[in-house]
Amino acid sequence: SVWISAALAQTDPLPSWNDGAAKQAIVAFVTDVTREGSPDFVPAPDRVATFDNDGTLWIEQPIYVQFAFALDRVKELAPQHPEWKDKQPFKAVLEGDMATLAAAGEHGAVEIVAATHAGMTPEQFIGMVKTWIASAKHPRFDRHYEDLVYQPMLEVLAYMRASGFKTFIVSGGGIEFMRAFAQKSYGIPPDQVVGSSIVTKFETRDGKPTLFRLPQVNFVDDGPGKPVGINQHIGLRPIAAFGNSDGDLQMLQWTTGSGGRRLGVLVHHTDAEREYAYDRNSKVGRLDKALDAAATDRWTVVDMKRDWKTIFPVRP
Amino acid sequence: SVWISAALAQTDPLPSWNDGAAKQAIVAFVTDVTREGSPDFVPAPDRVATFDNDGTLWIEQPIYVQFAFALDRVKELAPQHPEWKDKQPFKAVLEGDMATLAAAGEHGAVEIVAATHAGMTPEQFIGMVKTWIASAKHPRFDRHYEDLVYQPMLEVLAYMRASGFKTFIVSGGGIEFMRAFAQKSYGIPPDQVVGSSIVTKFETRDGKPTLFRLPQVNFVDDGPGKPVGINQHIGLRPIAAFGNSDGDLQMLQWTTGSGGRRLGVLVHHTDAEREYAYDRNSKVGRLDKALDAAATDRWTVVDMKRDWKTIFPVRP
Ligand SMILES: [Ca+2]
Ligand SMILES: [Ca+2]
Repeated sequence: SVWISAALAQTDPLPSWNDGAAKQAIVAFVTDVTREGSPDFVPAPDRVATFDNDGTLWIEQPIYVQFAFALDRVKELAPQHPEWKDKQPFKAVLEGDMATLAAAGEHGAVEIVAATHAGMTPEQFIGMVKTWIASAKHPRFDRHYEDLVYQPMLEVLAYMRASGFKTFIVSGGGIEFMRAFAQKSYGIPPDQVVGSSIVTKFETRDGKPTLFRLPQVNFVDDGPGKPVGINQHIGLRPIAAFGNSDGDLQMLQWTTGSGGRRLGVLVHHTDAEREYAYDRNSKVGRLDKALDAAATDRWTVVDMKRDWKTIFPVRP
Repeated sequence: SVWISAALAQTDPLPSWNDGAAKQAIVAFVTDVTREGSPDFVPAPDRVATFDNDGTLWIEQPIYVQFAFALDRVKELAPQHPEWKDKQPFKAVLEGDMATLAAAGEHGAVEIVAATHAGMTPEQFIGMVKTWIASAKHPRFDRHYEDLVYQPMLEVLAYMRASGFKTFIVSGGGIEFMRAFAQKSYGIPPDQVVGSSIVTKFETRDGKPTLFRLPQVNFVDDGPGKPVGINQHIGLRPIAAFGNSDGDLQMLQWTTGSGGRRLGVLVHHTDAEREYAYDRNSKVGRLDKALDAAATDRWTVVDMKRDWKTIFPVRP
């Protein structure tokens, strides 16, 4: 609409971005697909943009935030589980033995998720996450996790929504975990959050209709699961997608592989001083194949150190 | 917002409804939850309303529209499958032998869905549905199915949206089948359609990223599946739900069982002359347990014959 275009022309929609190729690519894309009469014009209902969460919208080092939540839950539940003192992977969690925990691998992670994420209603789980988020702090920055979202990406979300885009989170993280903060942190409502999930069952308990979270994987929204999750939840192919790791490779392929003006963006963590620097060899957020694909598929690679004036929001 | 309230006060939001208990219940609910200062006030982001599709938003007799589509697809594909002439349930479809087809039951239905709904991309499938919808006609009314939506329900959808509700379809029908017409027929975008689905797989074909529909059930969004589908896709508990059969029982229980001002509505098909009359003994859209529950749970039962001035839209 005219007033939005006029408003955007007067003010920089991405003030935390340095001028450079990445910022120019984002602004040029949004301008091209929203200007009536443009050969690249896309009608508003088809303006779908998807955003990975961990490492794209907020911090993911030294461990995923959701994993930090799970570890704290294990410690909180330990008094009710005296057997955990001698049982892996719980023993490792309680002793802070990260090497043993890492060696427990995916099987260990599934056991921890089952013990900490299941056996309750979705409302109870979301309540727990909200309580935790309000108090837990990042070990290095000593700030709440909600303060460790990326200010430049908040500006991209707002800019795209003001330009008629519907913005979705599409993440390997737990769908209900993210729903606990997505509206507050990103302005993204629960139905626009796509993520991994465990099985939830409906039953009548004490005469009351109840949903109950079971310790069983339902869907893994990562890698090739991302286009599947997008199709299941959104039902439209995105025209823009933002990610930061190999888990986003297929989402960016799916988004940019349909012909027409498309935008694929990778956030490259290059700033060890203000945040972290990692890519091809990182255990968390490995960016290897997708970085190679970015060159051939002409995706935009954001160099955090060079492209972002600020990393985190300045809170009053 | 003020201008919407003012506009609604001046014009009847439900002109195709006769004055009566059903219309009054809907208007009273919407008024109570949207009026600031009301003890029942619900903030806009929590105003979620879910609508079953078949028999609630459009016709479902004498057979589900999606089943009519599948039967037409079998006939269309038959020349490529000469073996179907001697193979049930396809033989029955080709011979119009509905008794044998009915006897093939759920197993037969799954075979027909596998043969007609899988083996293609979602885009191809949606294209097929759109083409079919544009030409197929209802056997009794000789009108396109898109003309056999319920005008009074279109008014409810528009009224609730104008009152700050987000409206979702939650149906046992195929999610992608409904997405082919939900925006055009109901003003409901693809990401606000929840339904049953088959497994979809991501793969690279001839160097192109592709989603492919497999002949395997992924999720059944019916009965106890409806609260699960709502939780997975919407992530909020509805405050209003509309259905017409026992397949909606758990959705209405889930919606109205949380305390606070809630609205559960059942459309009761009572008009054999203008549409159909059926309930406890119908194979399609059986309304039995949910009709009993309506009395104890104080759900609103719409008597189509008495409550609706018109059934279908008058098209120019
Ligand atoms: Ca990530
Ligand atoms: Ca129905």
